[in-house]
Amino acid sequence: MEVRHSAEALRRFGERCFVAAGMDREGAAIVTDVLVHAEERGHASHGITRVPITVKRLRTGVMKPRPDVKIEQVAPGMALVDADNGPGPIASVRALDAAVAMAKTQGVGVAVVAHSNHNGAGSYYAERALKQGCIALCTTNAPPSMAVHGGRTPVIGTNPVTMGVPGGDVSLLMDMATSVVARGKIVEASKRKEAIPQGWALDRDGRPTTDAVAAEKGVVLPLAGAKGSALAIMVEVLSGVLGGGRFAGDLGNLYQDFETPQDIGHFFLALKPPGEGFEARVGTLVGQLRQSALQEGVAEILMPGEPETRRRAQSLAEGIDLPDNVARDLDAVADLLGVARLA
Amino acid sequence: MEVRHSAEALRRFGERCFVAAGMDREGAAIVTDVLVHAEERGHASHGITRVPITVKRLRTGVMKPRPDVKIEQVAPGMALVDADNGPGPIASVRALDAAVAMAKTQGVGVAVVAHSNHNGAGSYYAERALKQGCIALCTTNAPPSMAVHGGRTPVIGTNPVTMGVPGGDVSLLMDMATSVVARGKIVEASKRKEAIPQGWALDRDGRPTTDAVAAEKGVVLPLAGAKGSALAIMVEVLSGVLGGGRFAGDLGNLYQDFETPQDIGHFFLALKPPGEGFEARVGTLVGQLRQSALQEGVAEILMPGEPETRRRAQSLAEGIDLPDNVARDLDAVADLLGVARLA
Repeated sequence: MEVRHSAEALRRFGERCFVAAGMDREGAAIVTDVLVHAEERGHASHGITRVPITVKRLRTGVMKPRPDVKIEQVAPGMALVDADNGPGPIASVRALDAAVAMAKTQGVGVAVVAHSNHNGAGSYYAERALKQGCIALCTTNAPPSMAVHGGRTPVIGTNPVTMGVPGGDVSLLMDMATSVVARGKIVEASKRKEAIPQGWALDRDGRPTTDAVAAEKGVVLPLAGAKGSALAIMVEVLSGVLGGGRFAGDLGNLYQDFETPQDIGHFFLALKPPGEGFEARVGTLVGQLRQSALQEGVAEILMPGEPETRRRAQSLAEGIDLPDNVARDLDAVADLLGVARLA
Repeated sequence: MEVRHSAEALRRFGERCFVAAGMDREGAAIVTDVLVHAEERGHASHGITRVPITVKRLRTGVMKPRPDVKIEQVAPGMALVDADNGPGPIASVRALDAAVAMAKTQGVGVAVVAHSNHNGAGSYYAERALKQGCIALCTTNAPPSMAVHGGRTPVIGTNPVTMGVPGGDVSLLMDMATSVVARGKIVEASKRKEAIPQGWALDRDGRPTTDAVAAEKGVVLPLAGAKGSALAIMVEVLSGVLGGGRFAGDLGNLYQDFETPQDIGHFFLALKPPGEGFEARVGTLVGQLRQSALQEGVAEILMPGEPETRRRAQSLAEGIDLPDNVARDLDAVADLLGVARLA
């Protein structure tokens, strides 16, 4: 049986867990806000379910609860951010805000974050930029779980690309892994013993498979073959290689490695549209695209991020369902920390 | 029978055609260089075969041979470029160089081009940036030939994304349309009456088809469904909406419309890697990725742009084959202009 919670209740729960695990109030609020953002938008894999692993990494000492984030302005439009091995969102919010501030005076600004950890859904940062009138490009690397084109072993992350564009009635918010599919979907299908479509993954011996259990032991494939592989490599360059942190096969695993910091890197670019009328022109583009004739079975043309925006409205109106197993994990972490359960 | 030509012979031929069609020597050299670059790298669709259509557009007066390109510096890191309806490469080279110059002082620079025409293979500009030590992101819009996700009519171009990264032994050069496949491949299969794979295209009624003839009358699909569709929309924003030119369904068709300028837009971003050792770290990444175990039938892991770099070496050593029909078209345009034929 699923139990429904308000976003506000999830937020208070996350904050009290993170404070109990050693974070200050401001840091706890940022990290929680990123998780609740994903939860509201229907991306539960990046939502409140991440509280236990975050707490575990804080308590084992492999991630710092109160990092001393340092921003070095290396050029008028370029900053290097040292996340000091704190939670990814804390350095990421500061980096994004720095990129937006640069964009407002320079036209464009870049902040590259090194020595960080998982920073949640990239859409959080892109949305934060577009609310300030900027286009944003945000990328992050991730521990290796994907093959490159022609390969059959995990040598690169599913390195997502996120972009936000301020529009009038409809802002655009693209947030996509460079894999065919999120690895989480393979894990879910494996649990349910369901088949997966051809082209999603290879088994441990490098053979294409539709068996989710075999795929889970194998490797997820990049989207569109060489194209997704190239995109993932470019994300690795921007997020990992550029900032001077570790990258690709050297990144620590979130769930398995409690000895080594993850050393994740992120890239944030903000761009201030010059002149007047940009948002209205985005509206014109959206209007044009919506006039497309529809494929059979399709009710309407949706813009990038629009399904999630609708889901958020629903989440805020009706509350958010948590599966039993997630609720149990949250109860366990509350008990461990000696804070109130979610209820 | 195919006839083989040196890149140098192709270059001299292109230049004399464009000068005869009204361009100055410098402009003719740039436009030709972009075409020969594609030809050398094995992308014949963007190669010397474009001379006749370029000449036709110049002679009908729908494109200016000697544009007065204007660069307006709107912020320290942002320039708007008015291509004055000249050949795309002329404004694009100036814009790319402006972006690189900004990157060298500001860390990052953007030049957005409006009122332009087809600018050839994006890899030309990304390579020009990486030779100057900069990472580059280059995009362009294109007349509508692709559906957006859920649609079945052409409402957007196959809007390519190009990135270049300076490396030590291996630089990275990604150049990809956001469609499943270049429309040219469907046209070729249609001519040969061959089947195309499921998922490439829809027929005129919006049904998936493997019949290339039906697909040619229909619409090409974005890569990876919603993801490629979102990427194409983002490219449209950067290349078309941002610069204030026309976009999406309002762009003129290269081959069919000789009344209206194309009004294509391009986007160029250059980024100077801060600090020392970036290119060596790219080399380390490449080394890591090459250690991947290989899929059956794959001989080695190649980096983005590497197949084309090898092809170029072969083209320079052995010359470039031109199919009979292309050679005939080139003879015809030479005769029309009263310049020496290629052979």
